[in-house]
Amino acid sequence: MTDSAAPIPLDTDAVVIGAGPAGLFQAFQLGLQGLRPHIVDALPHAGGQCAELYGDKPIYDVPGIPVCTGRELVGLLLEQLAPIGVQWHLGTQVQSLETLADGRFLLGTTAGTQLRARCVFIAAGVGAFVPRTLKIEGIKAHLGRQLHYHPADPEVPPGQRIVVHGGDEAAVAAAVHCADAHPAAAVTLLHRRDVFQAEPGLLARLQALRDAGRIEVVAAQINAIEEQDGRLAALQLTDPQGAPQRLALDQLWVYLGISPRLGPVADWGLAIERKQLLVDPASFATSQPGIYAVGDINSYPGKRRLILCAFHEATLAAFAAAELLAGDKVALQYTTTSARLHRILGVEHPGAS
Amino acid sequence: MTDSAAPIPLDTDAVVIGAGPAGLFQAFQLGLQGLRPHIVDALPHAGGQCAELYGDKPIYDVPGIPVCTGRELVGLLLEQLAPIGVQWHLGTQVQSLETLADGRFLLGTTAGTQLRARCVFIAAGVGAFVPRTLKIEGIKAHLGRQLHYHPADPEVPPGQRIVVHGGDEAAVAAAVHCADAHPAAAVTLLHRRDVFQAEPGLLARLQALRDAGRIEVVAAQINAIEEQDGRLAALQLTDPQGAPQRLALDQLWVYLGISPRLGPVADWGLAIERKQLLVDPASFATSQPGIYAVGDINSYPGKRRLILCAFHEATLAAFAAAELLAGDKVALQYTTTSARLHRILGVEHPGAS
Ligand SMILES: Cc1cc2nc3c(=O)[nH]c(=O)nc-3n(C[C@H](O)[C@H](O)[C@H](O)COP(=O)(O)OP(=O)(O)OC[C@H]3O[C@@H](n4cnc5c(N)ncnc54)[C@H](O)[C@@H]3O)c2cc1C
Ligand SMILES: Cc1cc2nc3c(=O)[nH]c(=O)nc-3n(C[C@H](O)[C@H](O)[C@H](O)COP(=O)(O)OP(=O)(O)OC[C@H]3O[C@@H](n4cnc5c(N)ncnc54)[C@H](O)[C@@H]3O)c2cc1C
Repeated sequence: MTDSAAPIPLDTDAVVIGAGPAGLFQAFQLGLQGLRPHIVDALPHAGGQCAELYGDKPIYDVPGIPVCTGRELVGLLLEQLAPIGVQWHLGTQVQSLETLADGRFLLGTTAGTQLRARCVFIAAGVGAFVPRTLKIEGIKAHLGRQLHYHPADPEVPPGQRIVVHGGDEAAVAAAVHCADAHPAAAVTLLHRRDVFQAEPGLLARLQALRDAGRIEVVAAQINAIEEQDGRLAALQLTDPQGAPQRLALDQLWVYLGISPRLGPVADWGLAIERKQLLVDPASFATSQPGIYAVGDINSYPGKRRLILCAFHEATLAAFAAAELLAGDKVALQYTTTSARLHRILGVEHPGAS
Repeated sequence: MTDSAAPIPLDTDAVVIGAGPAGLFQAFQLGLQGLRPHIVDALPHAGGQCAELYGDKPIYDVPGIPVCTGRELVGLLLEQLAPIGVQWHLGTQVQSLETLADGRFLLGTTAGTQLRARCVFIAAGVGAFVPRTLKIEGIKAHLGRQLHYHPADPEVPPGQRIVVHGGDEAAVAAAVHCADAHPAAAVTLLHRRDVFQAEPGLLARLQALRDAGRIEVVAAQINAIEEQDGRLAALQLTDPQGAPQRLALDQLWVYLGISPRLGPVADWGLAIERKQLLVDPASFATSQPGIYAVGDINSYPGKRRLILCAFHEATLAAFAAAELLAGDKVALQYTTTSARLHRILGVEHPGAS
């Protein structure tokens, strides 16, 4: 690869890593400081744990919101953030973070983009939400071509043999959807056991498609792959009785769940203890000036991993960064009375000062 | 006064001084820790600055609430607090706070009550909201009998001469209301100048009552009082031209505005700097173990006087106090999943752990 193939970095004042509640409110507070941040998240949507782990469950301790679900909270935070012109990079993981000679930071992502920022806010929570991967020798080479993890809306050329691998709601839904949408495809649902976790309606639909011969269920574990001319040709399996089996295929869609992994954050040379970035509670700066950490990822005396604490942390971090960038004190202004903040928020208040 | 006249103290785990946003959320978090706090506020209603200074103005930076007025925020915080069995002492100022030999705290109030608490949370904001008082020699002696500051719904025996003193909305409203509700009373509105600040409808109503001879307006300043048989008999005035006047009266209602005064908080022996109580940001404890300070009243490195910061401070203070009272670590539980918290909040969630 020549130098000219390296992507041209996007320049920005601030990058927020993570679009959980901490990252979303971080971006809002940066907006109030007059900055337009980029937000990067591994998930294809905002919300972090609230969206991914308890979207439909009620929260009772967000101040001033007697009750809301995880997903509703995310919706409210997005609505509040709307006036701030945020640049989104969803479905994208930040892999590398290095300090440049001029004090700026260079971030590399799984999307191949590079961001060059004057300050960075790590709101990585309990880690990047990424699909669990198959640990089978040689399988990585097929990623993005015949192998897909949690594909959202994958293309299916006619007559293909699709193997959906997994046992939960997402796997069953993918198999059912594929059989429904692509009558010319041969759909196999591959899972350790012939037992599936999904809501009753979906399970009934699966049974109907099995009865109609539109979905075949194979109960077995994957041991190895067979390749032909560099293509993935078949899976070598072992069934629950220990007998070997072989499953020929064109596409392998893997749904083994999405779980958080701290991943690269631990490798960025920042002071860290028990997987938490150590911060100064006056500014939520990490050991590297210009890099802040807020929300579940950080630690300081008295730390509690609560959403409302992340809001405070993000606010103080935004003030600290604004002062760093301005090289001067930044005075507090109230959203209620400040004409400058009203302009940023796009609201008109005659008489504000 | 004999010892037996001293009030019997009310015993409690926790007293919160101030019912602004900090005090309200402090009480909620104490509730989640299984405590039932008393709340004391000088104002006759909850809300502190939000209610008193910008009840109808919009706030945009309460996390997850894209916009609400000061008063709406107070309503939401009260709704969230409802499941916690708080004991209210409104219209009551805490005057004294002393540490007892057994480590508990004794609080004395303007209502004559005493509270004996294991821990105290000072959420006094920019001070107690109290009416501005008249600085006239000898007038104090008539307080509560003929002299009333911002009376809410005062009694008016028939035929009395009422002097309402002040020039803003509250003063005009009181004079108009008195003239309307008590046709047999003689109502005088006394203000420095014959110019009043109130909304147009109210000013029109005042003019109509003046035209009808139901309200007399006197433009003058008060210099001294005249007493007769220990009663307040008349006011000695100077009009804008410098001429002396005399105004006989039975009742003096004073509306010179409500403003915050730090008052006694500065005298409680706690470490204080520029009118802010110094706290440890890990616990928001003051220099006296067992006494915490949250919201606008406190100071620590990085402090910003914002509502959302007060929420964080109150939460960490509640954890710190719960650990102090329990003599042990208190683990974090989520309102989403904890059966213990669901019981406290009065919500049913089968399957919570
Ligand atoms: C079941 C459950 C119930 C809960 N109930 C409550 C409750 O009642 N009250 C409360 O206050 N809290 C509750 N919590 C905790 C709350 O959800 C967390 O404190 C909060 O989500 C933390 O927010 P965050 O933004 O710091 O991290 P997260 O929500 O974890 O978000 C972090 C985001 O960063 C992304 N990310 C990480 N690394 C990278 C990378 N390298 N590149 C790109 N993206 C990355 C992740 O994909 C993720 O989306 C609960 C948590 C759970 C699991
Ligand atoms: C015009 C204006 C606009 C604002 N806009 C915003 C905004 O957009 N965003 C934001 O975050 N903040 C804003 N603020 C600031 C916000 O209102 C304060 O940070 C917040 O009210 C502080 O809450 P608190 O509970 O600490 O104190 P307060 O709201 O001041 O409440 C303290 C209470 O304690 C009581 N008290 C004090 N001493 C005693 C005593 N000895 N005995 C009994 N009671 C006592 C007082 O009567 C009062 O009710 C604004 C403030 C103003 C004035």
